[in-house]
Amino acid sequence: MRKLLLQLDTSPHPSVFDRVVAYDAGADEIMSYGGVTEHAVRDLVHGAIFTRGPKDLRNTAIFIGGTDMTAGERLLAAVRETFFGPLRVSVMLDSNGSNTTAVAAVAKLQQAAGPKGGVQGRRAVVTAGTGPVGVRAAGLLARAGADVIVTSRRPVAPALVEQIRQRFGGSVRGVAMPDSSQAAAILEGAELLLNAGGASVRLVPRDGWAGRAGLRAAADVNAVPPLGVEGIEVNDDGVEREGVTVFGALGVGNLKMKIHKACIARLFEQNDLVLDAETIAEVAREITAPRN
Amino acid sequence: MRKLLLQLDTSPHPSVFDRVVAYDAGADEIMSYGGVTEHAVRDLVHGAIFTRGPKDLRNTAIFIGGTDMTAGERLLAAVRETFFGPLRVSVMLDSNGSNTTAVAAVAKLQQAAGPKGGVQGRRAVVTAGTGPVGVRAAGLLARAGADVIVTSRRPVAPALVEQIRQRFGGSVRGVAMPDSSQAAAILEGAELLLNAGGASVRLVPRDGWAGRAGLRAAADVNAVPPLGVEGIEVNDDGVEREGVTVFGALGVGNLKMKIHKACIARLFEQNDLVLDAETIAEVAREITAPRN
Amino acid sequence: MRKLLLQLDTSPHPSVFDRVVAYDAGADEIMSYGGVTEHAVRDLVHGAIFTRGPKDLRNTAIFIGGTDMTAGERLLAAVRETFFGPLRVSVMLDSNGSNTTAVAAVAKLQQAAGPKGGVQGRRAVVTAGTGPVGVRAAGLLARAGADVIVTSRRPVAPALVEQIRQRFGGSVRGVAMPDSSQAAAILEGAELLLNAGGASVRLVPRDGWAGRAGLRAAADVNAVPPLGVEGIEVNDDGVEREGVTVFGALGVGNLKMKIHKACIARLFEQNDLVLDAETIAEVAREITAPRN
Repeated sequence: MRKLLLQLDTSPHPSVFDRVVAYDAGADEIMSYGGVTEHAVRDLVHGAIFTRGPKDLRNTAIFIGGTDMTAGERLLAAVRETFFGPLRVSVMLDSNGSNTTAVAAVAKLQQAAGPKGGVQGRRAVVTAGTGPVGVRAAGLLARAGADVIVTSRRPVAPALVEQIRQRFGGSVRGVAMPDSSQAAAILEGAELLLNAGGASVRLVPRDGWAGRAGLRAAADVNAVPPLGVEGIEVNDDGVEREGVTVFGALGVGNLKMKIHKACIARLFEQNDLVLDAETIAEVAREITAPRN
Repeated sequence: MRKLLLQLDTSPHPSVFDRVVAYDAGADEIMSYGGVTEHAVRDLVHGAIFTRGPKDLRNTAIFIGGTDMTAGERLLAAVRETFFGPLRVSVMLDSNGSNTTAVAAVAKLQQAAGPKGGVQGRRAVVTAGTGPVGVRAAGLLARAGADVIVTSRRPVAPALVEQIRQRFGGSVRGVAMPDSSQAAAILEGAELLLNAGGASVRLVPRDGWAGRAGLRAAADVNAVPPLGVEGIEVNDDGVEREGVTVFGALGVGNLKMKIHKACIARLFEQNDLVLDAETIAEVAREITAPRN
Repeated sequence: MRKLLLQLDTSPHPSVFDRVVAYDAGADEIMSYGGVTEHAVRDLVHGAIFTRGPKDLRNTAIFIGGTDMTAGERLLAAVRETFFGPLRVSVMLDSNGSNTTAVAAVAKLQQAAGPKGGVQGRRAVVTAGTGPVGVRAAGLLARAGADVIVTSRRPVAPALVEQIRQRFGGSVRGVAMPDSSQAAAILEGAELLLNAGGASVRLVPRDGWAGRAGLRAAADVNAVPPLGVEGIEVNDDGVEREGVTVFGALGVGNLKMKIHKACIARLFEQNDLVLDAETIAEVAREITAPRN
């Protein structure tokens, strides 16, 4: 019985990236839908859950993507509402790659923070932390015990911070960083830095982080020059620069691809998996764990 | 050479249900198109008939689906007009599953009516008989020799009854049934009952059918409570209730799935099959025939 | 690793013809997109080039099609601009089959013109030579050394002739042919004739070409009666009629299919092939070359 992946994408053209990764991760056939809204979800999901017997449902799965994470979250909610007791299939949400990117970046910082306690109790600053990657990275860091500060050009809405706290638990604060000249002050006391900002926006100049006492690790997910953290190269993957262990966008991206593929493979192992930020982080933990 | 199924669907998103069933029935690859109108058919069908040699054309086939059976019938007509002598491929029409559902429900009633003569000469009432499932079920019952009454909330248009008679032959009449309190009177003298109504509409209360002398078999294709015939359970598949052999929506649905899959497999055995209600009924007869 | 073809089609429904040919030519999976504009190309191509390692990129390729060749050319330009150094995949442009049809028709004329010099120095008339097939056929003939005249019902724009000359080199002139009664005069001195006109338009009557001294070969790509060159039959494939070696639309079409399939197979042999008229002609030369 072939492994069928139902790709529900909120953008007009369903993502080619997600299709290629799914093929390479073991999906036999992909049924791709673009421009999907929550109103269309019921009929599409019925086709996934009412066609194969209960024992075979693990061979069907759903992937939700698209450029808009908020729209993707609405689809995930609609998909879960459509499930019908044991008549359900595994589902993964990764709009714009935000979940897998956030998980990979946090995994890199955890690895660099050291095996003893990881990020526990350390201050972590997530610049551009109010976008889809930033929110999830901040939440995952807080959940792992870090003391998290998220920055945004504009004041960070208390409601957003509260949402992160409620979903992930832990300690999160928002701080406005109108421009990169404030980076040095905001990084005061930080041990971890993650830039979650978009393409071609430099948020942290070199003097904001270089040689700073206490800073252990820094990662940047922006792959398009100018990069987000001045001095971190796109291919950096755990090298030491300016006394700090650093990770560039491709260093993070390689792990992100591994996590993405591992998650697709997991979808077909059972029929009741829901892969969102927290559960994707668990998959990442397993595949990055040192083997005995 | 791979078996390619061209899925022409009149709804914006081509049916996931039909795709999964087609994969499981042996199609190697499915080329799915949504929002297809009759104007787009010619170019799409040319791509199916002008690409492979005459001997290989049985490896390409067309499935017409979508929520609107009338639109599906227009596509089927346009597809057949596009065929070009021996340059043709097999085609199946099953918008909203109406053909396979009607065939399965009628097959269940025939089986319950007994091996001697089946439904021949028996009165059959099809409630909500003017919708796509009802029209086809009524026609198939009439064609098999039953004396058929179709009901509708509003008066049944004589033109519709005439269309059924012309297509399927046999005896068909229309009777208005404004609400379920008239069911008992309309079922007077009936030996067979099929509710072809939609989700969550109760058309026949228990006192309309239970314990009625002469009633042999009753089937209901509505799977969503309240069910269409009070007292028939969704999983019923030939059990006796109130002295009548009954079939619920899943009992009918299991056979419908078998018929649907068998039809897809047949499409790839020759290049000139047209599977519509009557020919799908023949496929059903073969797969439900007792084996020696 | 599966061979994945990304089909970018400028028409609302991506071509079924191109999909079936691609499957039969060895693509394992096809990711089909309809209604693609140049603005959507970047994200789609990123999904093709950023998902597999450099050594595996030859297993991904792009096919550009649709009914409008000008729109297809815009997509090809946008695709090539998106490539990123070695991060690229092979791509083929064949909107409406114009490239493969033009290449096949020219190959037939070259073959008939004889092994010594082929079309070199011979006058070739391409009727309806300003459409997508005609422009490419004229260019390929000019490139091979023919003295080319393209005709159109209206005066041929000097800019179009200049574009053909700049792209393909060689000698090309435009001549208006308001109706088919001028065909005889325009064919004066011609050794080769190609009708590149559309379905059901007769451009060259029998007395325009039959028995004409010097005319060696004639081909017609119009498959729908009335055919474009009176007296050439649709299945003609190198037979002599009226003293001329002639090729009808299916004679040309069979070679076109072989060329199309060979090109798809080539796409997956390397990751930096660009198959447009000139390079498709090279593939045709290899597959039509006499074997030793």
